[in-house]
Amino acid sequence: MRIVVLAGGIGGARFLVGVRAYARQVGADVTAVVNVGDDLYLHGLKICPDLDSVMYTLGGGADPERGWGRAGESWTVKSELAAYGAEPTWFGLGDKDIATHLVRTTMVDAGYPLSAVTEALATRWQPGVRLLPATDDRLETHAVVDLDGGQRAIHFQEWWVRYRADVPTHRFVFVGADTAKPAPGVLDAIGSADVVLIAPSNPVVSIAPVLAVPGLREAVVDGPGRVVGVSPIIGGAPVRGMADRCLAVLGVECSAAGVGGLYGGRSSGGLLDGWLVAEEDQGTVVPEVTVRAVPLRMTDEAATAAMVRAAVELR
Amino acid sequence: MRIVVLAGGIGGARFLVGVRAYARQVGADVTAVVNVGDDLYLHGLKICPDLDSVMYTLGGGADPERGWGRAGESWTVKSELAAYGAEPTWFGLGDKDIATHLVRTTMVDAGYPLSAVTEALATRWQPGVRLLPATDDRLETHAVVDLDGGQRAIHFQEWWVRYRADVPTHRFVFVGADTAKPAPGVLDAIGSADVVLIAPSNPVVSIAPVLAVPGLREAVVDGPGRVVGVSPIIGGAPVRGMADRCLAVLGVECSAAGVGGLYGGRSSGGLLDGWLVAEEDQGTVVPEVTVRAVPLRMTDEAATAAMVRAAVELR
Repeated sequence: MRIVVLAGGIGGARFLVGVRAYARQVGADVTAVVNVGDDLYLHGLKICPDLDSVMYTLGGGADPERGWGRAGESWTVKSELAAYGAEPTWFGLGDKDIATHLVRTTMVDAGYPLSAVTEALATRWQPGVRLLPATDDRLETHAVVDLDGGQRAIHFQEWWVRYRADVPTHRFVFVGADTAKPAPGVLDAIGSADVVLIAPSNPVVSIAPVLAVPGLREAVVDGPGRVVGVSPIIGGAPVRGMADRCLAVLGVECSAAGVGGLYGGRSSGGLLDGWLVAEEDQGTVVPEVTVRAVPLRMTDEAATAAMVRAAVELR
Repeated sequence: MRIVVLAGGIGGARFLVGVRAYARQVGADVTAVVNVGDDLYLHGLKICPDLDSVMYTLGGGADPERGWGRAGESWTVKSELAAYGAEPTWFGLGDKDIATHLVRTTMVDAGYPLSAVTEALATRWQPGVRLLPATDDRLETHAVVDLDGGQRAIHFQEWWVRYRADVPTHRFVFVGADTAKPAPGVLDAIGSADVVLIAPSNPVVSIAPVLAVPGLREAVVDGPGRVVGVSPIIGGAPVRGMADRCLAVLGVECSAAGVGGLYGGRSSGGLLDGWLVAEEDQGTVVPEVTVRAVPLRMTDEAATAAMVRAAVELR
């Protein structure tokens, strides 16, 4: 069996731990197509927060408390950068993490596409699933906000980390999405998948920028695999993060039904064949989509693998 | 009084501490023209070992034991880079140090010349003397060596740090020296100096690449200031480092007389009006150069300032 997972950062990373466990049980092959909309350059370093969250988590190097970055991290470089007055100071680059960014930036500057760099970094981390960026091209999520008396677009990370999503926001734009191409292997993986899982990641700023790569959404919709999403909203609240604020920008209700409706039924122009929601959301209806309610907390690998099994087996 | 110092890394840095102390005593203005031949890119970072040694030492941030890098340094990034198998591994980049390189690289990539970057970094360190790179252009010291059965040129740092200068060496070349220009301010400083001091730095790979910048040597020789050198060799051995190996490549005797003769007397096409040697080298003769013997160990700031006074007052 071939499984493709569309994923963002922390939620995607934890979901993928369960996908890997399930895949080992049934002998399946897993490809993760990961969001790059959060990527940015800071202090000259190319940083891919979602790819790194997935890689560190699957490789056993992620900080389990914080959810992002490396376990046992130190912050010497960050405090020295601050001593130089180097901007920005609102994004925390740990010392261990910086080594990843140095290797990546050196390779990107030498002409390697992000997908090749990701493969090279993964030789250390051995994530056990194939990691692909959605695209090798620049595709950056920006938020159009009211700031300093005017409307302007700021990078998603600035919106998220610096402003804690707490600034009047009109919409999100995916800069570069008009010309981006799916990274090598993405369309092939989707085209031969038995099932495409949409991880319980932020639908607005993690999954939407993946689907914004021209041809990627079409490959999923027209592909052979069943498409099953897992709700990131339980009982009307995001499990983690600020998906509620992102959904509000789109005017979508923060509920399992709201997000299911945002993705939409595949037979009516949307994405989904199935939609997995939490027991708390039993009774959720998404038109023309098979909805099932199961325990949906990713408390450990076994619980997450059981969720994945339910998603794969959803008919 | 205006003092210009031609300087390399560690020896130059310690000498400049004495120059600054002396200058404070007499109310003099100090400009250090620093070697850039050791500069290199590692892991995508622009590293200026000599400028940093001088800046950290004068700014009170240098490691007093090691002589290079920052006090209280940690090595997290280095060990993480090694875990990725990132080459080279023979050059030690400390975590604190890396912040300097990130700021510098970001500014250089944004188009700032090295002299402007150096000035910006110095706003943190307040070195108390004006720091100028010899040139803003690429001027890299390479060693032509026998390696792997053939002759090839390797970067000075590879020769020095990786091979510990212990490989058959034919000569040094200053790549880029034919087209390099003195950094802004260098010629003006030399042209208005009352005295030009040649620090007790390595004459072959610290001072020679400074003088290799077209127009710089001529500015010193034709300038108004007396030119006084301080011997880096005491009793036939370098005070620190491997100047003996560098001198051997040129076939120059490792002695105060040998280095004095290498610089040469100003009245006969060389550089020097005066040559300050150690008491141990009393009796050293350099044709047409005034030689004086004084205590020449830079044991502390006061001792070094006394050396500087002797150099400035040498007639």
